[in-house]
Amino acid sequence: MRFGQWSKIKVSLIVQKYGGTSVGSIERIRAVATKAVAAHRAGHQVVVTVSAMSGETNRLVSLIEGVSDRYNKREYDVVVSAGEQISIGLLAIAINALGVKARSYLGWQVRFLTDSIHSKARIREIEGFRIREDLEKGHIVVIAGFQGVDEAGNITTLGRGGSDTSAVALAAALHADWCDIYTDVDGVYTSDPRIVTSARRLDRISYDEMLELASLGAKVLQTRSVELAKKYKVPLRVLSSLQEGGGTLLTEEDELMEKVIVSAITNSRDEAKITVLGVPDRPGVAATIFGALAEANINVDMIIQNISESGETDMTFTVPRGDYQHALETLAIPVKQIAAREIKGDPTIAKVSAVGVGMRSHAGVAQRMFKALAADGINIQMISTSEIKISVILAEKYMELAVRTLHDAFELDKDAGDRVIAR
Amino acid sequence: MRFGQWSKIKVSLIVQKYGGTSVGSIERIRAVATKAVAAHRAGHQVVVTVSAMSGETNRLVSLIEGVSDRYNKREYDVVVSAGEQISIGLLAIAINALGVKARSYLGWQVRFLTDSIHSKARIREIEGFRIREDLEKGHIVVIAGFQGVDEAGNITTLGRGGSDTSAVALAAALHADWCDIYTDVDGVYTSDPRIVTSARRLDRISYDEMLELASLGAKVLQTRSVELAKKYKVPLRVLSSLQEGGGTLLTEEDELMEKVIVSAITNSRDEAKITVLGVPDRPGVAATIFGALAEANINVDMIIQNISESGETDMTFTVPRGDYQHALETLAIPVKQIAAREIKGDPTIAKVSAVGVGMRSHAGVAQRMFKALAADGINIQMISTSEIKISVILAEKYMELAVRTLHDAFELDKDAGDRVIAR
Repeated sequence: MRFGQWSKIKVSLIVQKYGGTSVGSIERIRAVATKAVAAHRAGHQVVVTVSAMSGETNRLVSLIEGVSDRYNKREYDVVVSAGEQISIGLLAIAINALGVKARSYLGWQVRFLTDSIHSKARIREIEGFRIREDLEKGHIVVIAGFQGVDEAGNITTLGRGGSDTSAVALAAALHADWCDIYTDVDGVYTSDPRIVTSARRLDRISYDEMLELASLGAKVLQTRSVELAKKYKVPLRVLSSLQEGGGTLLTEEDELMEKVIVSAITNSRDEAKITVLGVPDRPGVAATIFGALAEANINVDMIIQNISESGETDMTFTVPRGDYQHALETLAIPVKQIAAREIKGDPTIAKVSAVGVGMRSHAGVAQRMFKALAADGINIQMISTSEIKISVILAEKYMELAVRTLHDAFELDKDAGDRVIAR
Repeated sequence: MRFGQWSKIKVSLIVQKYGGTSVGSIERIRAVATKAVAAHRAGHQVVVTVSAMSGETNRLVSLIEGVSDRYNKREYDVVVSAGEQISIGLLAIAINALGVKARSYLGWQVRFLTDSIHSKARIREIEGFRIREDLEKGHIVVIAGFQGVDEAGNITTLGRGGSDTSAVALAAALHADWCDIYTDVDGVYTSDPRIVTSARRLDRISYDEMLELASLGAKVLQTRSVELAKKYKVPLRVLSSLQEGGGTLLTEEDELMEKVIVSAITNSRDEAKITVLGVPDRPGVAATIFGALAEANINVDMIIQNISESGETDMTFTVPRGDYQHALETLAIPVKQIAAREIKGDPTIAKVSAVGVGMRSHAGVAQRMFKALAADGINIQMISTSEIKISVILAEKYMELAVRTLHDAFELDKDAGDRVIAR
């Protein structure tokens, strides 16, 4: 905002986050330093969160697994958190070399207080005063992502991708004006551009839509970081660290967004289907089947049960493809216990979804989706819906075709204002 | 001490320290875990201090130097201290895998409070209560060497070799019964065994003698660690991590030691000699010469000034060989200022020293030393003495011969009780 020449220019506080690829070499670290210094010289207060240099976390994990495959998770956190310690120090040195004072801090120093669930801890609180002091002095502050400290002073880590969450939590705690997540793509797209050449980068997307996309296979952001951004209303931008411009802004829904019925079409191959045939229709059978899978730590996604007239029913559900064989073995005994007739499976399926907050207020989206797929001869095997999403399971070989068909059907290659169906 | 079968067996508290080579690979880390567990199963309370895996500190330093050659030392400490963080976590995992509970701690966790001189900080205080608590529970405690934290919560490091000092300081703070420094040699020898084949391992050596040896080129222990051991009377053993048995005990002087006039003969090639000829004999000339060297950060060791009758004098001194050229260049202008006639130098000299606490009470050691060297035709260029040491500078080509001659002259190949000169 500008109020004429005598007004004070507002200083913005920006949190920038760079992933492992962005700090993967000395040259890349220097490039990140240049970006942070540019924001600082533009008059902003800058806090930078970084991951470990790409490859470093894997190196440390393989050292750990070399010592023992049944490692203690507290000690795992001690070892892997060293990765970010190296990258923050190097980045602070690179920023200093450009003539701007920088100081690096580890999770325990600033401090990122977490619970004590080692290797997937959750942030409870961030003490920001040391960071604010440094910012007031004109320093750039560099913070280790991915790590924290529990009440007892033990080092904790937030799980893979946790640096996104560190950055958003930090932006919330410092009341930052915005949080920039630099990654190797330049934003969130209407579809995977490798499948749909006419896919468009979204300038804006709502937190809720992004949550669905993150859980439907878009690997841009850790789900937990989007949850936090939504909760604390942190304006979040996804940007490329390799090219200027572009980016997608995550923000709260507004009227304009609601007019767009479908924002994106996603796809995922990480699916397998299992059907238990001839299940006696009596209480407790579902609990037997899904209890066994839960005990084996296998996540079940969609579940469909056909209503039976004969006293028998068929039960179909999906599991992650990597757990398919394990799931079949796990179910062998329960299936006998409940006296089901047969168990079948298919690991060659895919999930294609349409996501959009506009669905809340627009009827007919499902119908349009099914009609478009049918017109191209694509058979739908399973359907699952939420308020702002429709997912279908289909044979894997139709996945790309289905994505392109739906991208066309919802006119996602057009500017939102030009879409016929959006009005 | 044993008091018969009903007496309580005293539990000893042991601090073990393992250097970088001893934890240089997963196999070595497992071997260290086995040694620590053996001491624990023998009924002792065990605290283990470790360095970074060999090569790791060099890797981190070269990353730092790749980013900038004028790096900030606070950030240097952040990066290099990650090396010990990795090794303590891995060692704790390896000990756990052997069925004994272990917990690792970083410098800031336990805590090693230091001053704020980054990259060569000095330990001020250690808070031992967390360690004692774990020991009482029957845990083995693994502590990162080389690092601490200052009052403001910044990470500090103690300088190369600082893990020795961490171990000794820890032993002093915990009132440990003894401190074992595991390294790649099995103790302290009467001379370098590569030069004198009849060199003998010393079973015991006094702190003062070890201090002289450390500063005269024996690279077994960091000097600061020996100072601390002396100050807090920590019984210190130097042992090999690769073979059982042996070792040298560092302890306070006793009567037996005083009877041994010379304990060891050391040698060092890290010497160069500079002579300023025809120096006018007036106040201030020494200050001009040595002031210039001090400003250039060049350490001067021995200094000899010949008394002049002509109003002119010659001044000879030694500098580290790596600083020889730099010293000559540094002195070019001061030598003109004081109107000295000429400057000459010789970088091919060596220092050979005899060390022994018995010298304090025995006359004639210097005479015996000079006589032995003369008998073998070795010319002495400079002499310097302390209460328990005599050092001579000679041409480098005579170094090995001089060491062997003196080893023989003081009968160091014999058991101390059998030496003629020791009585």
